[in-house]
Amino acid sequence: MDFNKAALALHEEHRGKIEVVSKIRVASMEDLSTAYTPGVAEPCRRIAANPQDVYRYTAKGNLVAVVTDGTAILGLGDIGPEAGMPVMEGKAVLFKEFGNVDAFPICLNTKDVDEIVETVCRIAPVFGGINLEDISAPRCFEIEKRLKERLDIPVFHDDQHGTAIVLLAALINALKVVGKDISEVRIVISGAGSAGTAIGKLLLRYGVKHLTYSDRNGVLNRDTALNDAQLELCEVTNENDLHGTLADALKGADVFIGVSAPGIVTADMIAQMNHDAIVFPMANPIPEIMPDEAFKGGARIVGTGRSDYPNQINNVLVFPGVFRGALDVRAREITEEMKLAAAKALAALVSDDELSEKFIIPTVLDERAAKAVAKAVADEAVRAGIAQI
Amino acid sequence: MDFNKAALALHEEHRGKIEVVSKIRVASMEDLSTAYTPGVAEPCRRIAANPQDVYRYTAKGNLVAVVTDGTAILGLGDIGPEAGMPVMEGKAVLFKEFGNVDAFPICLNTKDVDEIVETVCRIAPVFGGINLEDISAPRCFEIEKRLKERLDIPVFHDDQHGTAIVLLAALINALKVVGKDISEVRIVISGAGSAGTAIGKLLLRYGVKHLTYSDRNGVLNRDTALNDAQLELCEVTNENDLHGTLADALKGADVFIGVSAPGIVTADMIAQMNHDAIVFPMANPIPEIMPDEAFKGGARIVGTGRSDYPNQINNVLVFPGVFRGALDVRAREITEEMKLAAAKALAALVSDDELSEKFIIPTVLDERAAKAVAKAVADEAVRAGIAQI
Repeated sequence: MDFNKAALALHEEHRGKIEVVSKIRVASMEDLSTAYTPGVAEPCRRIAANPQDVYRYTAKGNLVAVVTDGTAILGLGDIGPEAGMPVMEGKAVLFKEFGNVDAFPICLNTKDVDEIVETVCRIAPVFGGINLEDISAPRCFEIEKRLKERLDIPVFHDDQHGTAIVLLAALINALKVVGKDISEVRIVISGAGSAGTAIGKLLLRYGVKHLTYSDRNGVLNRDTALNDAQLELCEVTNENDLHGTLADALKGADVFIGVSAPGIVTADMIAQMNHDAIVFPMANPIPEIMPDEAFKGGARIVGTGRSDYPNQINNVLVFPGVFRGALDVRAREITEEMKLAAAKALAALVSDDELSEKFIIPTVLDERAAKAVAKAVADEAVRAGIAQI
Repeated sequence: MDFNKAALALHEEHRGKIEVVSKIRVASMEDLSTAYTPGVAEPCRRIAANPQDVYRYTAKGNLVAVVTDGTAILGLGDIGPEAGMPVMEGKAVLFKEFGNVDAFPICLNTKDVDEIVETVCRIAPVFGGINLEDISAPRCFEIEKRLKERLDIPVFHDDQHGTAIVLLAALINALKVVGKDISEVRIVISGAGSAGTAIGKLLLRYGVKHLTYSDRNGVLNRDTALNDAQLELCEVTNENDLHGTLADALKGADVFIGVSAPGIVTADMIAQMNHDAIVFPMANPIPEIMPDEAFKGGARIVGTGRSDYPNQINNVLVFPGVFRGALDVRAREITEEMKLAAAKALAALVSDDELSEKFIIPTVLDERAAKAVAKAVADEAVRAGIAQI
């Protein structure tokens, strides 16, 4: 199937993918008088008197802004806010389909960190959560950090944390298959941008002890780091202060995680890894190494972002459930513990009977995923005391 | 019926009134691959190459932002962005119901004119039009003016122009009933805020020659004007430089238009007007004078904002059609001529057979209204050469 052609036809036929509809009927004067004037004044008055009532009488509690500045749209790069719109609408569709979350695209006509933060804070009254999307690193770190400080609603950069959660879920199950322990494996992440950074942080939090990054200048260390975010990573990774190439880093490694560029890993490089290698080349649509090549090099488990191979590692398994859970209990934020809980819940959906080299993660259309993630996220928010209902 | 109680129950039951839904199905991997990755990259690339394609492949062309800062919500005043949300959602419901326009509330957490303008410009890539709502005067004038200068999509402050259009439509038909000529009648507008200003400007454009304003300090003249916007009105109104009260202004007047405060007009004041007086006290929910009192004073035609009396003058008859028409031809702006065309088309829906003192304007549920207004607006945009398709 030619997805490009089909996608163009679909988008043109429907003029985009989302619409804003009414949950109520407006067929009579009475309907009009309760949905609009004069009746609507009463919920307005209640909210003015008690601000928390905005969750009771408006759509805010189920509305999520999908915010981008168009700088890192898919693998297409900085193509601008208008050109990013199809992706943001797609995200909104998936939010609704899998999480019953009402998501709305906010494509910003600015790349300035201060302006982005200010703008999101100013429109925040309408939303119960903020999903940052396709904003380039390292700006995305600063934007997320400042928004989290200023807003009392969950702020979640899906490219970072959605990817990290689904990857961790896949890794948990993959390690089960190969019988290795999280604290002993050596992991190499190719790509120290937004996704790579978040993946590494979550893995460390989960118990990984031996982690090395490689980026465009080779193995990440104090000499090759490009910015403060990467310097921070050096503090907790690359314990042996390795200098060299990705190929050097992979020698003897147990796990390869790629969130970088197509085709940069060869079968020979995989052959240098430890026995029972786990290979997650997730560059999209063309991975760091194609599954067939990875197996040729001796990989035991391979997972990519692609739907045409087993073990599709796709954050659609995560973000609808994360926000569903956070909104359900009105969590003030999404913590690292909530992310860990989400990953574990997602991994647990694959039963021991089903678990195999070719099945480490639920398929993206598995409706249980969002429900399990939502429950785990909500339960953890309640446990931690950051749920507001 | 207790609308307050019914409205609270309705708003709480549904948690607000709008939701964001998908226009397409996502039931298979193929669906996912065309609506989202990898297929979605193709419309993104097309838009990046040709920015106008955003209208072809996304929802932008049918999306309208309903923007408020919460400073002039209904008759409730400055109650803040959260408390304004039920009104903005209500507006979105009506936009969809009557105009099939996808409208989304943007309730801003700032009252600063510069910040409001900047914020709306930054989120504009998503929208095909901007509907300003319940922003207090005189800030609303400056905000609208600057947004019109900076954006290439229609910007329309409904409290001003929607009200002006529906009022003009009612006046056109009322004058027909009483057999008076627009260029000869003396008109008094009570309230020189956002709605009053826009009404006056549109009436003058339509051919009114004798117009006087009254505001909280009495008849508007160079001594009583509160701001630049009111000073501008003095240039083209109050030809005899009248100083005095609203009662003074009403002596001998043919038309009273109220967009001010409840109960400030008495039957005695109406009795001082010219024969066949037309009285439009539109303060909501309690008009400047109740219809019964106005008739007692000798009014021949009365129209209010209320649904429980004849001749309800409500801009729901206007804004869905105005945006429908503007979006249909992708008009760059909404001109005075488009507003006049809308008013005339709306007035023309009342046939000569139907036209009477009690029926000068279609009822708010009349489905023909939005269609007629949309056609008039679109035709005029095409005629004027500001339609882009």
